[in-house]
Amino acid sequence: MRGRATVLVEKNRLETWDLPIADPQAGGILVRTVVGGVCGSDVHIASGEAGEMPFPIILGHEGVGRIEKLGAGVAKDYAGVDVKVGDLVVWSPIPLCGRCYSCSVLQQTPCENTQYFEHANKPNWGSYSDFAWLPSGMSFYRLPDHADPLAVAALGCALPTVLRGFDRCGPIALNDAVVVQGAGPVGLSAVLVAAQMGARCIVVIDKAPARLAAAMKLGATATVSLDLPVEERRRAVYDLTGPGGPDVVVEAAGVLPAFPEGVDLTGPHGRYIVLGLWGAIGTQPISPRDLTVKNLTIGGAAFPAPRNYYHAMHLAVRLQDKVPLADLISHRFSIADAGKALEATRTGIATKAVIDPSIA
Amino acid sequence: MRGRATVLVEKNRLETWDLPIADPQAGGILVRTVVGGVCGSDVHIASGEAGEMPFPIILGHEGVGRIEKLGAGVAKDYAGVDVKVGDLVVWSPIPLCGRCYSCSVLQQTPCENTQYFEHANKPNWGSYSDFAWLPSGMSFYRLPDHADPLAVAALGCALPTVLRGFDRCGPIALNDAVVVQGAGPVGLSAVLVAAQMGARCIVVIDKAPARLAAAMKLGATATVSLDLPVEERRRAVYDLTGPGGPDVVVEAAGVLPAFPEGVDLTGPHGRYIVLGLWGAIGTQPISPRDLTVKNLTIGGAAFPAPRNYYHAMHLAVRLQDKVPLADLISHRFSIADAGKALEATRTGIATKAVIDPSIA
Amino acid sequence: MRGRATVLVEKNRLETWDLPIADPQAGGILVRTVVGGVCGSDVHIASGEAGEMPFPIILGHEGVGRIEKLGAGVAKDYAGVDVKVGDLVVWSPIPLCGRCYSCSVLQQTPCENTQYFEHANKPNWGSYSDFAWLPSGMSFYRLPDHADPLAVAALGCALPTVLRGFDRCGPIALNDAVVVQGAGPVGLSAVLVAAQMGARCIVVIDKAPARLAAAMKLGATATVSLDLPVEERRRAVYDLTGPGGPDVVVEAAGVLPAFPEGVDLTGPHGRYIVLGLWGAIGTQPISPRDLTVKNLTIGGAAFPAPRNYYHAMHLAVRLQDKVPLADLISHRFSIADAGKALEATRTGIATKAVIDPSIA
Amino acid sequence: MRGRATVLVEKNRLETWDLPIADPQAGGILVRTVVGGVCGSDVHIASGEAGEMPFPIILGHEGVGRIEKLGAGVAKDYAGVDVKVGDLVVWSPIPLCGRCYSCSVLQQTPCENTQYFEHANKPNWGSYSDFAWLPSGMSFYRLPDHADPLAVAALGCALPTVLRGFDRCGPIALNDAVVVQGAGPVGLSAVLVAAQMGARCIVVIDKAPARLAAAMKLGATATVSLDLPVEERRRAVYDLTGPGGPDVVVEAAGVLPAFPEGVDLTGPHGRYIVLGLWGAIGTQPISPRDLTVKNLTIGGAAFPAPRNYYHAMHLAVRLQDKVPLADLISHRFSIADAGKALEATRTGIATKAVIDPSIA
Repeated sequence: MRGRATVLVEKNRLETWDLPIADPQAGGILVRTVVGGVCGSDVHIASGEAGEMPFPIILGHEGVGRIEKLGAGVAKDYAGVDVKVGDLVVWSPIPLCGRCYSCSVLQQTPCENTQYFEHANKPNWGSYSDFAWLPSGMSFYRLPDHADPLAVAALGCALPTVLRGFDRCGPIALNDAVVVQGAGPVGLSAVLVAAQMGARCIVVIDKAPARLAAAMKLGATATVSLDLPVEERRRAVYDLTGPGGPDVVVEAAGVLPAFPEGVDLTGPHGRYIVLGLWGAIGTQPISPRDLTVKNLTIGGAAFPAPRNYYHAMHLAVRLQDKVPLADLISHRFSIADAGKALEATRTGIATKAVIDPSIA
Repeated sequence: MRGRATVLVEKNRLETWDLPIADPQAGGILVRTVVGGVCGSDVHIASGEAGEMPFPIILGHEGVGRIEKLGAGVAKDYAGVDVKVGDLVVWSPIPLCGRCYSCSVLQQTPCENTQYFEHANKPNWGSYSDFAWLPSGMSFYRLPDHADPLAVAALGCALPTVLRGFDRCGPIALNDAVVVQGAGPVGLSAVLVAAQMGARCIVVIDKAPARLAAAMKLGATATVSLDLPVEERRRAVYDLTGPGGPDVVVEAAGVLPAFPEGVDLTGPHGRYIVLGLWGAIGTQPISPRDLTVKNLTIGGAAFPAPRNYYHAMHLAVRLQDKVPLADLISHRFSIADAGKALEATRTGIATKAVIDPSIA
Repeated sequence: MRGRATVLVEKNRLETWDLPIADPQAGGILVRTVVGGVCGSDVHIASGEAGEMPFPIILGHEGVGRIEKLGAGVAKDYAGVDVKVGDLVVWSPIPLCGRCYSCSVLQQTPCENTQYFEHANKPNWGSYSDFAWLPSGMSFYRLPDHADPLAVAALGCALPTVLRGFDRCGPIALNDAVVVQGAGPVGLSAVLVAAQMGARCIVVIDKAPARLAAAMKLGATATVSLDLPVEERRRAVYDLTGPGGPDVVVEAAGVLPAFPEGVDLTGPHGRYIVLGLWGAIGTQPISPRDLTVKNLTIGGAAFPAPRNYYHAMHLAVRLQDKVPLADLISHRFSIADAGKALEATRTGIATKAVIDPSIA
Repeated sequence: MRGRATVLVEKNRLETWDLPIADPQAGGILVRTVVGGVCGSDVHIASGEAGEMPFPIILGHEGVGRIEKLGAGVAKDYAGVDVKVGDLVVWSPIPLCGRCYSCSVLQQTPCENTQYFEHANKPNWGSYSDFAWLPSGMSFYRLPDHADPLAVAALGCALPTVLRGFDRCGPIALNDAVVVQGAGPVGLSAVLVAAQMGARCIVVIDKAPARLAAAMKLGATATVSLDLPVEERRRAVYDLTGPGGPDVVVEAAGVLPAFPEGVDLTGPHGRYIVLGLWGAIGTQPISPRDLTVKNLTIGGAAFPAPRNYYHAMHLAVRLQDKVPLADLISHRFSIADAGKALEATRTGIATKAVIDPSIA
């Protein structure tokens, strides 16, 4: 048995390899990829901006697929649901060791021993591929019957990231006024979740009209253009939220100037949740005095846990007929065209690009 | 009936006035001051650094005294405890209006309508005085029998401030490693509370050996001198806490460079609680990326609520025979010598100075 | 100035009185009643089941009205919003003293000094009346422009009660499976709130088909008839929620047998929130072992705080065009027909009855 | 290599077997037992009260020992601390599968696939033995240098159970008034932890004077004899806590009548934490109305997680020189005398009995 995969052999060099596919190990499964999501961080990995990688590696940490083979002893998914060959599953691509301080004592991600990538010649869970080989210990969850795999794939790892953020920093409370900085996948996920949790208003700030339009479809109540000067953005936000200002601001912009703006936007007794800036190296000035006199809380999070993938998948499936999730996937590419997928993501042409192995 | 009070008639100009003392209003009480605490912010108020004030004002927002007269309808304190003339009480000097968004909807301090000072010629709750006139709505709490008023006064408004910080930002958890930046009253209070809440180690950073020695008596397990270079301070802290670093860092230093150092010191999944920087104008650079990859939470607080005064008082009384609280009061001054009290506080000669109206 | 009011002069004896209307006191307001809600507890008060009352009293603790006169010093509501004569307001009928242990230290309701009723001959906030006289300290909140007072009145004090319950016992989490016992106003409110907070399924148990139908319109995803035997009800619930069972069960039935059934229904690691049983005297057997091996939490709440009225009102206004709230008001009665209103409530004929003073 | 172990071959029949000792599997370790704790549940297991067991089994789920051999790949404990042969370790005897709904989605114990016992002829982690063979996935933690293994063993699985309870049901807050029902190991652990977390008073109820005396040494501030009638016990508790009553009541009695008494004792807005009743079959009547009007929370917990063992061990070591923990071990028995150990535990003669394999 063989399958194709997009291999990053070195910085900025992608190849399509035809590889032998191993049987699943005991406790693991083999999945036939239905959709491999293209994440903004794949662009950074491919370009080298995300640092040195153990090349050659197979790209793709977002995936939905069908079980091709079950490893010895596997009869259920990681939520205790019975599984069989042919079932659709989603997986959490960050294996947890279960035996480090974070896993065992804190019960927090990230695990200190996580191996994000395996060498391309070894059994591999990269999702720009015909098959993903999930080792024992890598959580996977069966999609309910009638689930649309595209709805689950549409927000990729962004939706679990947002759920992780609210796990860490507290949920949206009923009637909260929420501001979301940035309307990429993380920002759109924050909009979706805030709307489901009962926010009274959700204001999204971005530059791209198409992204702002998508945000409105997912539950945003108003948008503010990044083209406005920062003072006018602030005024627009406060006109929308009222004088108490935002109860919660979610940073999903990924660019450094968003940080002091977000601290400033957050209203008294409010929370600022930083999710997008994990990839931005550098510092920004903020006023610690504001933290005290405004009673602010600033929290950050990254590295969704398996539980966040579980809830993200179920949320997406539950909403698939009410919210145009699958429509967020604007571009599909074959495994061989992964380079084009990265380019469409890098330039922002694609709201969401995916790899579809069924495209020749 | 007349009494003396220290009046700040304008910036840098103190006078001792002899004033008529009004009877308490309905719902209020008149208190004969036993101790008026001198707070670092009094220094800033007197010097003008804390901004324009409604001069002339009577200084002093920390006080313990004996009930001199009860206003109409007052038979209990704000915790429902019976009171009579002669009882020792402590009060929360920030009256809450009960009818603003913060009071009514958020149940958070600060109240939006708080009046911190009253004109010196009007009935007045300033505590550098023979009598404090507490209006209806200003919470006061009876000290238990056998309470030492000096133990209650020793940490002044710093102890309620620390309790407010843990209310807002979450308590110390059993076995937490705690770092406290600064060993003034707020830092010492943080040490005391962390020790009572079950911290496994409490490392205090300050420059003054006497303050560090006081911290050790209140429960600190180790000290680090601010004279060490910042990298060595970091190394010293991590040697003491272990590689996971501090679970909680409390900022009680009040100087801007403490802020980025505190963010950096806080260990993964840790919390940084900013309490001392409410008076420091300016910004400091921090790395938002660190918030995400370290899963940090940064929270600030100020303006203790009445409940914090209640718990601070009871904590102090409960510990008065186990911990040398009253000994923290290093200097006592008469009302007329309030200027010397401010000077002893400004220079740091005094661990804690108080006004004692019984001194002639 | 005079106005009519429904006066309970003794157990089971209602009269309509024509009373002089006092000007508002300083800090208070006078409200012209638009809707006075009829609550199930009014039935118990009138019948004597709720215990001895300070007769004669004016009935009605749910109200929406227009400001008729502002007391001295009143320019804003209790959320800091400007108010003027003619504005629509809702009020929290339980005045808080602000100076008992519950108010000052715990910041919890109920206040220990609350006076629920005033003698009918004194200025009075009962809402079965032309005018409600709100004393200083009784929180009121201005409805936003374009608010429908019927939407706010429709769930009466039940919606604040449910919000209070989630404040005390923790909110619904995204994707929670929720069961609601009873589809009276409290149950319907629980359905509404759970749907807004992102529950994945909301199963309602009641006997009355009309109530179950109303629950479906407010967000329930399934209903179970109380006519089924208890084992079949359990099976039906677990078929709907899956084998993990309900994450949250809300008791809004008000009858004792609901209690052990609710404990049993709650799934492992779940929460059981008891709201309706405040009026049911008696005990019920439960198995404490189940609490440990299922890791259950059982919490109760009563006495909504002003903040719960604020949020309930804003939630209702926000949803008034999306959810048929006003339609829940099935019966309107004049002040003189208050007895019929109580009867329609007692028999359950009315989903919600209100007093409308404009009916002659 | 061979070792002895106490084998329960059937109900009420203990034998001492001499068994071959297997090398550790990859990821596991072999431990030479230093102390095997005797838990009250061992008595129930041996008598058959705890239900059918997969006989023959080796008794003992509490243990401290020295690493005899490291399995392949093991260089650290489950907190990331380096380990080597000869190091003292404690282990969490409940292996977690990591792939059920509880482990993966809820991150809660109990794991749905936990195997509590292995057949006595297979490699085995029972601690009434010369050696405990810990499979891969069974968390173990290295004791710090200078740790006293007896201090760690003294409270056995009771201390992790209490920490689990506070994890689930919220911690003791500073100045809380706490009541503990029962002064066996769970009750004593609750006293110890409440004292460390800053309770203002800790009242313990038990019958046995020796146990009450032990509680006082661990931090209790007062005791109440179970010999008093229930109304007098209540009065005594309220005299000690004040009219607000206990903020937290911990059930560690294990007998059914403790349950309604505990609900009744808990003060308004208080929490009742049920820990001891996991083994008591039956129901007890309580008043659901009390839950609402007193705003009570009742929570239960069982099955400590590995993180609770970690913190329990570190707490014990940290306090070993301040609190007479090791002295709680009143009786030591050889492996061959395990029956006597169970008897001393059953009768309550022993505060704590342990198996010491070094006794011939």
